[in-house]
Amino acid sequence: MEPKKPSQSLAESTKLVLPNDTNTLGNLFGGRLLAWMDEIAFVSANRHSKRVAVTASVNNVTFDKPIKLGDTVTLRAKVSRAFTSSMEVIIDVFIEDKVSDEIISSNQAIYTFVAVDQNGLPIAIPGLVPETEEEKERYNGALRRKQLSLILAGKMAPKDATELKALFS
Amino acid sequence: MEPKKPSQSLAESTKLVLPNDTNTLGNLFGGRLLAWMDEIAFVSANRHSKRVAVTASVNNVTFDKPIKLGDTVTLRAKVSRAFTSSMEVIIDVFIEDKVSDEIISSNQAIYTFVAVDQNGLPIAIPGLVPETEEEKERYNGALRRKQLSLILAGKMAPKDATELKALFS
Amino acid sequence: MEPKKPSQSLAESTKLVLPNDTNTLGNLFGGRLLAWMDEIAFVSANRHSKRVAVTASVNNVTFDKPIKLGDTVTLRAKVSRAFTSSMEVIIDVFIEDKVSDEIISSNQAIYTFVAVDQNGLPIAIPGLVPETEEEKERYNGALRRKQLSLILAGKMAPKDATELKALFS
Amino acid sequence: MEPKKPSQSLAESTKLVLPNDTNTLGNLFGGRLLAWMDEIAFVSANRHSKRVAVTASVNNVTFDKPIKLGDTVTLRAKVSRAFTSSMEVIIDVFIEDKVSDEIISSNQAIYTFVAVDQNGLPIAIPGLVPETEEEKERYNGALRRKQLSLILAGKMAPKDATELKALFS
Amino acid sequence: MEPKKPSQSLAESTKLVLPNDTNTLGNLFGGRLLAWMDEIAFVSANRHSKRVAVTASVNNVTFDKPIKLGDTVTLRAKVSRAFTSSMEVIIDVFIEDKVSDEIISSNQAIYTFVAVDQNGLPIAIPGLVPETEEEKERYNGALRRKQLSLILAGKMAPKDATELKALFS
Amino acid sequence: MEPKKPSQSLAESTKLVLPNDTNTLGNLFGGRLLAWMDEIAFVSANRHSKRVAVTASVNNVTFDKPIKLGDTVTLRAKVSRAFTSSMEVIIDVFIEDKVSDEIISSNQAIYTFVAVDQNGLPIAIPGLVPETEEEKERYNGALRRKQLSLILAGKMAPKDATELKALFS
Repeated sequence: MEPKKPSQSLAESTKLVLPNDTNTLGNLFGGRLLAWMDEIAFVSANRHSKRVAVTASVNNVTFDKPIKLGDTVTLRAKVSRAFTSSMEVIIDVFIEDKVSDEIISSNQAIYTFVAVDQNGLPIAIPGLVPETEEEKERYNGALRRKQLSLILAGKMAPKDATELKALFS
Repeated sequence: MEPKKPSQSLAESTKLVLPNDTNTLGNLFGGRLLAWMDEIAFVSANRHSKRVAVTASVNNVTFDKPIKLGDTVTLRAKVSRAFTSSMEVIIDVFIEDKVSDEIISSNQAIYTFVAVDQNGLPIAIPGLVPETEEEKERYNGALRRKQLSLILAGKMAPKDATELKALFS
Repeated sequence: MEPKKPSQSLAESTKLVLPNDTNTLGNLFGGRLLAWMDEIAFVSANRHSKRVAVTASVNNVTFDKPIKLGDTVTLRAKVSRAFTSSMEVIIDVFIEDKVSDEIISSNQAIYTFVAVDQNGLPIAIPGLVPETEEEKERYNGALRRKQLSLILAGKMAPKDATELKALFS
Repeated sequence: MEPKKPSQSLAESTKLVLPNDTNTLGNLFGGRLLAWMDEIAFVSANRHSKRVAVTASVNNVTFDKPIKLGDTVTLRAKVSRAFTSSMEVIIDVFIEDKVSDEIISSNQAIYTFVAVDQNGLPIAIPGLVPETEEEKERYNGALRRKQLSLILAGKMAPKDATELKALFS
Repeated sequence: MEPKKPSQSLAESTKLVLPNDTNTLGNLFGGRLLAWMDEIAFVSANRHSKRVAVTASVNNVTFDKPIKLGDTVTLRAKVSRAFTSSMEVIIDVFIEDKVSDEIISSNQAIYTFVAVDQNGLPIAIPGLVPETEEEKERYNGALRRKQLSLILAGKMAPKDATELKALFS
Repeated sequence: MEPKKPSQSLAESTKLVLPNDTNTLGNLFGGRLLAWMDEIAFVSANRHSKRVAVTASVNNVTFDKPIKLGDTVTLRAKVSRAFTSSMEVIIDVFIEDKVSDEIISSNQAIYTFVAVDQNGLPIAIPGLVPETEEEKERYNGALRRKQLSLILAGKMAPKDATELKALFS
């Protein structure tokens, strides 16, 4: 399989925040945003792998700025690194100002998907070759995040996580 | 404020997996489960703090066993540690066998909520005193997870994360 | 089949009342609550019978206290009596105060389910042995309610409804 | 206030049964139908009273024939009796054959609504004068059903329910 | 196949406008109304053809009067003309005043459906014989609208659209 | 107000077709697609006008290729012409092949929006200057379509529709 570029898996979706998406403070519910991110990340993982992909884990999501009722929200997902059959997908979320043309970054999430065959078993996917500076940085970070996940799941000894250990020395 | 016990924030919800909750493999969509977990974790955070709580981050969610169409899914959320105004909530998800009485653990998630006042600003909450062995273990792990979040967000230097560093030495 | 205890069929679900669940007075729509009650009662009937169960009738639902937007609502369902293939399930609904720890009983419903096989035909289920005072009282009332349903459906002559007749004499 | 005819409160709605409305047997969920009935009964109660009406109780719903995925379902609601501020609404549900022109009665429900003012307090509504034979029969039955509800709620002594007692003698 | 009357395909649905159906001005979203119209027009097309019908085009929808949160909206669909396997369905939308008995026409839409067999291929349907004045006028207009659609799709030369040309001469 | 380019109002959304979005043939319901198109067209109209925009009419939507369950659907909306306070928005819909990288055009729609102030009254918007060949062609067609709408609504005499008449001569 020929490796792909991150731009080939770019998936984008723009949504309006409606009354039923909000909590009693009038802000978008975290759970609604998590579901939106999962859907667009799934499309991105499918564009990279051309396979059905299932969510394997959600590694880190932060909610920095509240998103308000009536806001226009854009989610942009791109595969940041491909392993044997799993992919890390990073989703960036933006809010656009309704009056000016300003676009504000509101939060970010990191999901991991596994490509599966028709029996639900993992299947090999193309590699990823990052191009831009940001893509390269995210590509490198993905390995550290993978080691961290394996440690947290008890599937790797901390002493073997070479890249991660370097952070703390 | 008097500290509370984890059992005081226990929140539970049982759901049926309906056709629209599933992907083309007939399994529950990750995004749907993330939204369900956010709702019940919100209830748990509210029971501990008696405040409106907003999702601050989703730290780690794993999807180990696929959940099928027609499955009965139970989500159980409990505050695992309370900080000044933020709380870590751990959600355990179970599937029950439709014929036997067997209950299978399907996955786990860790969410962080911040209690806010009517202006959306952080407000102090009661402390948490763990009781069972599992509660104590989760209470201790919460500090390491918090340090990890701060490092990933660039708000703490790795060398200052005493509890976390110990893992790698 | 060995008879079961009511506690074995206890099913619980906690929900948040969101904007789309409310009428123009800002209260939870009756229809939404009826659907929530049906789902959790279905889980309870399934836990007792370990069979697919279909709603046969809704015998009595009262809406005493309005449930407000933003309220946390807990539904608790338990089989109150098992007949040959049908079960009566009683659902109690509670609202919790968002500031104090007070729990208020908001309303109650009685649903009847029939356990069916894969062709949709009725199939035998285990008996029920009530344990607490409340469970015994509900168990006895279930027979009167069953006679009443049969009379209203024209399937029993009022003079044969021995338990029910006793009420009016 | 001038009394009204039942035909003035007739409300009708036709729905398609979609995948998400069904259980694992491919039949319409009871809870979904209960919510649809509540919505159209609300419209009927509003047409009679020209007031906001809230669901007070669901007195009797039977599910005789399973409704299948893809079925076209028609709900027809009409006020059957008006009391001081409450109304009984009867909802008849029909399925139409997709190939022939045959219409099959699938089930029936009886809901009670209370007309309220802007503070949510009961307010007087017009009386109802039945016209057809069926309307007259339902009008008379409504009083017996009301007495039954009052007895079940402990608000009337069985011996005072004159109309109801007559049934058992 | 025997031709049918427009009244045989009349389909009606009454809906309440709930919070999630509205935009930030508190009016019903156009997209929600379009979906409601499609569902009831589908039922009408099915009543005429006794076949599964798929939406082929939406020819003209106007939104004259804003529909408000809490409004009761009635949609009435009827086949206006049948061609070989396609049907034009006109949907009229009405809002009813919540206090008076006044009914206001709010907007109108014209949809075209094609009856299909189990392979999704077009199949012949009965003809339509209009009865009332309005039905006859809509029947005649349907041919002009069909010609217009064919021209816009580049499937008919403007000079061959005899009925339509007459309009401009 | 400075005129804008069509690319400034480009809005895009990618969706998965889930079970509840489909009819009994397993294809996406027309009504669901109409609602999705309205939402993304609203975003496009808002990006051009920086105002709340309400759907004024849906002029022409065709459904050429059935969209299947599980398909990934991309909607792309762009303002094609701006009048005093109204805008024509054209939405192109694409399906992507799940295995190859092929993208198929599935259908197209033309919506008209009116920019409104906080009282819901029309308000002036910037002009539009088309750039590409396709944008110029759509810009010119918009005037003919506007004249056609005015004629169909009885607000313009066919003889005054200069651009449109030219088509038939």
